[in-house]
Amino acid sequence: MSDVYVHRLRLLRARLAAKSIGALLITHLPNIFYLSGFSGDSGALLVDESRVALLTDGRFTVQARQELRIGARLVISRGPLVKSVGEWLRRKRVTVGFEASQVTVAQMKALRRATGPSTRWVPLTAMVEGLRAIKDADEIDRMRRAARLASSTLAEVLPLLKPGVREFEIAAEIEYRMRGNGAEGPSFKTIVAFGARAALPHARPTAKKLRKNELVVLDLGAILAGYCSDLTRTVYVGKASSRIRNWYEAVRQAQGAAIAATRSGALAGDIDGAARRVLAGMGLGKYFIHSTGHGLGLEIHEDPRLARGQKQLLQAGNVVTIEPGVYVQGVGGIRIEDDVAVHADRVEVLTVAPRDFLEL
Amino acid sequence: MSDVYVHRLRLLRARLAAKSIGALLITHLPNIFYLSGFSGDSGALLVDESRVALLTDGRFTVQARQELRIGARLVISRGPLVKSVGEWLRRKRVTVGFEASQVTVAQMKALRRATGPSTRWVPLTAMVEGLRAIKDADEIDRMRRAARLASSTLAEVLPLLKPGVREFEIAAEIEYRMRGNGAEGPSFKTIVAFGARAALPHARPTAKKLRKNELVVLDLGAILAGYCSDLTRTVYVGKASSRIRNWYEAVRQAQGAAIAATRSGALAGDIDGAARRVLAGMGLGKYFIHSTGHGLGLEIHEDPRLARGQKQLLQAGNVVTIEPGVYVQGVGGIRIEDDVAVHADRVEVLTVAPRDFLEL
Repeated sequence: MSDVYVHRLRLLRARLAAKSIGALLITHLPNIFYLSGFSGDSGALLVDESRVALLTDGRFTVQARQELRIGARLVISRGPLVKSVGEWLRRKRVTVGFEASQVTVAQMKALRRATGPSTRWVPLTAMVEGLRAIKDADEIDRMRRAARLASSTLAEVLPLLKPGVREFEIAAEIEYRMRGNGAEGPSFKTIVAFGARAALPHARPTAKKLRKNELVVLDLGAILAGYCSDLTRTVYVGKASSRIRNWYEAVRQAQGAAIAATRSGALAGDIDGAARRVLAGMGLGKYFIHSTGHGLGLEIHEDPRLARGQKQLLQAGNVVTIEPGVYVQGVGGIRIEDDVAVHADRVEVLTVAPRDFLEL
Repeated sequence: MSDVYVHRLRLLRARLAAKSIGALLITHLPNIFYLSGFSGDSGALLVDESRVALLTDGRFTVQARQELRIGARLVISRGPLVKSVGEWLRRKRVTVGFEASQVTVAQMKALRRATGPSTRWVPLTAMVEGLRAIKDADEIDRMRRAARLASSTLAEVLPLLKPGVREFEIAAEIEYRMRGNGAEGPSFKTIVAFGARAALPHARPTAKKLRKNELVVLDLGAILAGYCSDLTRTVYVGKASSRIRNWYEAVRQAQGAAIAATRSGALAGDIDGAARRVLAGMGLGKYFIHSTGHGLGLEIHEDPRLARGQKQLLQAGNVVTIEPGVYVQGVGGIRIEDDVAVHADRVEVLTVAPRDFLEL
């Protein structure tokens, strides 16, 4: 059993003991991967004081044997997984925690029916996510490589932004080149938005052709060694008006203020506030229609959330995006996003793309 | 308001009325898209006897205005979406159905807290999925095009299967070419598995190089106009042994038997049984470690499920995959998968790739 997994299990068991929970049912796949190394598409992990069991189905028998990094009992389920989990727990008469943010109402009903009344179910949140939010040096190294991969891919596709090219063609190039650069895949659906479509923060690439004098928002990320990166740059094709230049400068300053506010011990809401204050000071507050950032790691959206009123304190090991933007309906949008690792005594910007205003 | 959306809402309201449910909260995004046209990444749709409301956040204001195909009130939430939904329902004192297979235990708790005791919550399943399982002619046309796109992309990449090429390179080519052929993206993570790795039904592409005398499983799908396709072919690079040839022939016959059993009125479990019987008759039953197929549409896995014991009757408008396989640890695997639309009086295989055993 690998040391890192021993360590994670020990931390998790300490959390369970602190809550007097006999066992934890883990159904969220990234949490299962984090704790056990199993990366299959279906599974449930049961952890108690001394044992671990992985339940999955026959499609994943071989994969589970190859991947498991912990001494877990492997149980191959023949029917619905939650039913097997319930039957497995039935005779144990224990208090079992479950992931309340993952288990659906229907699954819970099936679990209760399968275990019968001898099992007491306790809703828990962020038991594993709380551990995952603190990355170790190896995880940060993977994220650094994922961030650099996204950064170099961005540099490769900027020269392709010529009038006439379509949004989906650029998205295809980004994803193809990320793969070619070694990514396991994109960490989310690549966003490519030209002109007025850049006012949609989550624009899906369309057949729209790039025209001269348009903003271009590129938001991309790679998965490398299991970990995500997330990078946005906004460029202008043509010669930008002073209004566009001012907006860009405002977003850049907002991002700089938020990065400057990011450190171990900072309040998550204060980092959001730092970006928001800069944009409000330039009369652009109402155009900043989302939060400043989010944690990332095995998933693209993790804790901590950098949003209004978030009381969480940042800690060494957190990795977050810092991504303020302005979005003006009918005109376009500007977003600048980097990935930032929080160390004990400093922060490290993992993405390495220039932030100067670029006119192509 | 477009006719098709009027029709869908009318069917949904009839289902609600039959259960004496005053309103339905829809949180599953493909269901929201199906009913309203809104494709954003965050939203909740509330449907009652006479009105529809879409709740989302500021990132999607513009997109919602552009996409909504129904006369819905648009509510932009500033905090957590479930909280806004609850507050919006608070004064209505109604019975509200929710999607029990989608809403998590934690969300339900937040909803109950926000509405207070005046709202009676009723868990429902498959209210919208039941409608979605029956595709109309336009939907089947989109799926036909998505299936053909996957088929032609497969034909494009077969010549790239030369010794030395890596699994992830083939996956990158498949996804890039699907995009180039007009897909909005892959409908799931492309599977490319060489040699013994083909024994993993859900293998993620790795850096493994193709060698002579290996099986190759390619499982790919495209999203086109919102709808998914799903296609698997297995080929051999080199000259196959008679054992491999026999396995291939067995899987092909199993698939043929399952397609022959597919028709309006057939029991889903019987289609699975038809494939299973052929493989069992050839002594390969224990190597067929998953179910025979699944519905597909806006999502890659939908109803009906073609698995052991499934009592559902197929109906005209269902579109399902038929994908038996055999998987032998240490040797490899063979799967053949096509997409089949069920019409009133016949079935139509939407994918158009040859099924002959191919030695490259």
